[in-house]
Amino acid sequence: MNAPQAGIPHVVVIGGGFAGLWATRALARDGVRITLIDRRNHHLFQPLLYQVATAGLSSPDIAAPLRHILRGQRNVEVRLGEVTGIDASTRTVALADGDTLAYDFLLLASGATHAYFGHDDWAPHAPGLKTLDDALAVRRRLLLAFERAEAADTAQERAAWLNFAIVGGGPTGVELAGTLAEIARHTLRDEFRNIDPAEAKVCLIEAGPRVLASFPEALSARARAQLERLGVEVVTGTPVGAIDANGYRLGDTFVPARTVLWAAGVAASPLGKLLGAPCDRAGRVLVEADLSIPGHPEVFVAGDLASVQQDGKPVPGVAPAAKQMGAYVARVIRARLRKQSCPPFRYRDFGNLATIGRMAAVMHLGRLQLSGLLAWWFWLFIHIFFLIGFRNRLIVLINWAWAYWSYQRHARIILGDEDAA
Amino acid sequence: MNAPQAGIPHVVVIGGGFAGLWATRALARDGVRITLIDRRNHHLFQPLLYQVATAGLSSPDIAAPLRHILRGQRNVEVRLGEVTGIDASTRTVALADGDTLAYDFLLLASGATHAYFGHDDWAPHAPGLKTLDDALAVRRRLLLAFERAEAADTAQERAAWLNFAIVGGGPTGVELAGTLAEIARHTLRDEFRNIDPAEAKVCLIEAGPRVLASFPEALSARARAQLERLGVEVVTGTPVGAIDANGYRLGDTFVPARTVLWAAGVAASPLGKLLGAPCDRAGRVLVEADLSIPGHPEVFVAGDLASVQQDGKPVPGVAPAAKQMGAYVARVIRARLRKQSCPPFRYRDFGNLATIGRMAAVMHLGRLQLSGLLAWWFWLFIHIFFLIGFRNRLIVLINWAWAYWSYQRHARIILGDEDAA
Repeated sequence: MNAPQAGIPHVVVIGGGFAGLWATRALARDGVRITLIDRRNHHLFQPLLYQVATAGLSSPDIAAPLRHILRGQRNVEVRLGEVTGIDASTRTVALADGDTLAYDFLLLASGATHAYFGHDDWAPHAPGLKTLDDALAVRRRLLLAFERAEAADTAQERAAWLNFAIVGGGPTGVELAGTLAEIARHTLRDEFRNIDPAEAKVCLIEAGPRVLASFPEALSARARAQLERLGVEVVTGTPVGAIDANGYRLGDTFVPARTVLWAAGVAASPLGKLLGAPCDRAGRVLVEADLSIPGHPEVFVAGDLASVQQDGKPVPGVAPAAKQMGAYVARVIRARLRKQSCPPFRYRDFGNLATIGRMAAVMHLGRLQLSGLLAWWFWLFIHIFFLIGFRNRLIVLINWAWAYWSYQRHARIILGDEDAA
Repeated sequence: MNAPQAGIPHVVVIGGGFAGLWATRALARDGVRITLIDRRNHHLFQPLLYQVATAGLSSPDIAAPLRHILRGQRNVEVRLGEVTGIDASTRTVALADGDTLAYDFLLLASGATHAYFGHDDWAPHAPGLKTLDDALAVRRRLLLAFERAEAADTAQERAAWLNFAIVGGGPTGVELAGTLAEIARHTLRDEFRNIDPAEAKVCLIEAGPRVLASFPEALSARARAQLERLGVEVVTGTPVGAIDANGYRLGDTFVPARTVLWAAGVAASPLGKLLGAPCDRAGRVLVEADLSIPGHPEVFVAGDLASVQQDGKPVPGVAPAAKQMGAYVARVIRARLRKQSCPPFRYRDFGNLATIGRMAAVMHLGRLQLSGLLAWWFWLFIHIFFLIGFRNRLIVLINWAWAYWSYQRHARIILGDEDAA
């Protein structure tokens, strides 16, 4: 199955996210054969994952099978599998099912996961959001919290179920907090008999001095104002001290809250460490100017797993950067095969965009700073435009139009049997 | 929370399926208060469940939150919970969370589940299809089977992963077999490099003499011919002798097959036994002519859980019968409150319809017998028309139009982490 084909260089790509998929597609017409390995069968449009978590979209709306995306590209074999080892000296990758793949070029693009800053015991009480399974688990928690509040026997218990906290004021935290506040105030209106969902408290907690720290200060302030208008309580400058099943500690106060979501820390995929290359504190691989690793010009790292400095600042872990890195690695491989040279990687910043809720967003594009409705329309356009596959775009657009006019979120289905009682 | 309100009769409805939901809605303008209890937060349009299992539709396309459906009906409280006891002598229902509800009228409509005819050890190897969680588990199995075949090391292993068996030739079995054959032949075309998905074998096994036994013989024969045209091998008159992780036994032959689906036996919900009323062999409650149970005119059973004979034949366990029973129970309760009498329940048979695959179906409507394209259009129209909620209908229609023109099934996303390696 993995017999070497004489003369055709073998490119192994680990990870079917933006970096891996863009590299794979960019090599479609080159004289290489590619094996794309992923633990999951689908490419995920991560920027909209919070919409699945908040029941606005279904899983298949933001994901497409990798095989399907690449069905027409005959030089690619897609492999569902888990990488357990990388040996740069023998140029081989080991899979959990026992197979070993030999490569001529390797691209490691396995992305990032959430990190609890050494507090792994918080993980069960404050789930994060990186995969579709994460999103469905968060959706389940959010919807069940209102059910538990409705069935609560005491006012105290009810209040704890109606207390929601989101830890981390980056784009994901802001999106979750804004959407959750809207769900409580609008979507669930009239549906309960013992509680008023609008009494839910949504608290966004950021350890740093302001939300959306990657934006200019003025936009951070506007995002905060928009969140507060939606009813979100924004706490900045205070790290969470503890999280357990009953709530969280903020400074000296313990706040009873049955639903805490984690949108704070990001750690690089553990596969980075398998390379034996130098990593930064978050586990990202410190790559050369051409995204290869020191001493192994045939091994590349791209996307969230790569630590790249540019003009004294880190290249951010966002989808456009991952796509650019993936496409760049394809270019380097092509140049190598032709014995040509390639200029160093440069990230082209097309701007920064974060949504806050219904018709509220902030946008930073060069000198342009926008907030409110116009930024939101821009955000909507960009995100639907970049969704993979025509069909998804259409369905997502209809879902959004529907949610916009009706305040309804159609995917409010609790899946999973375990504790539905 | 459940304090009796003086003078207002309390109707407790267990189960938010067709029977329970239709009864609840029919009582909207009566002077009763209603508590609708369900283990899940959603009403499920079960006739399309096989479409979720075969990745044609998303879960939220065929389900809607019960609270949302009933938000405008102020005399209903929806309760997410598990019923653990029913005491007809004290007129109380006990819930798993410790609460007890007192009722004046009780409607038990908790439906049916699958049965393995005393072979419960087959369950893990041959999953059935009753809930959304079942459907997602089946979807996962089907999609992973092709992945495993693609990665198989031997021809024998590959063949076992490409062997699919569906046990039970009723409507669900026929729908699953037809759709699966189409997926293998059309949807997955070009996506694999080591296997040809079209080589998959789909076998539909029915112990009785013919598929779709509830239809006239001529239509059964036509359904069989349509299945065979799609590439399904149809085996009748032979029960499956054994099922394990490696395959199944048919007569004296053991057939290696890694994917076996169960569409054969139906057993009534175990809640029926809690009533202490007489049950038939499948656990269905033998009800009186007004769907109440003997000795308790205030306790009703409706839907798949009720065993009703009419003109010497059992009323079938289909959605229209459940809706009619639910609406009838509402009528009886209304008559009782007015001290009026009510004629016995009569099932009105509007016909029988089963789909086989793309543009193939059979239909029996009084003297009219149809098969093929016309029956399929009729099936499509009926199913979309009866889907609850405008939004779902539109989305499902678009998904179908898309699937029809492209042969594609958009929901081919494998969820669940456990054995994705």
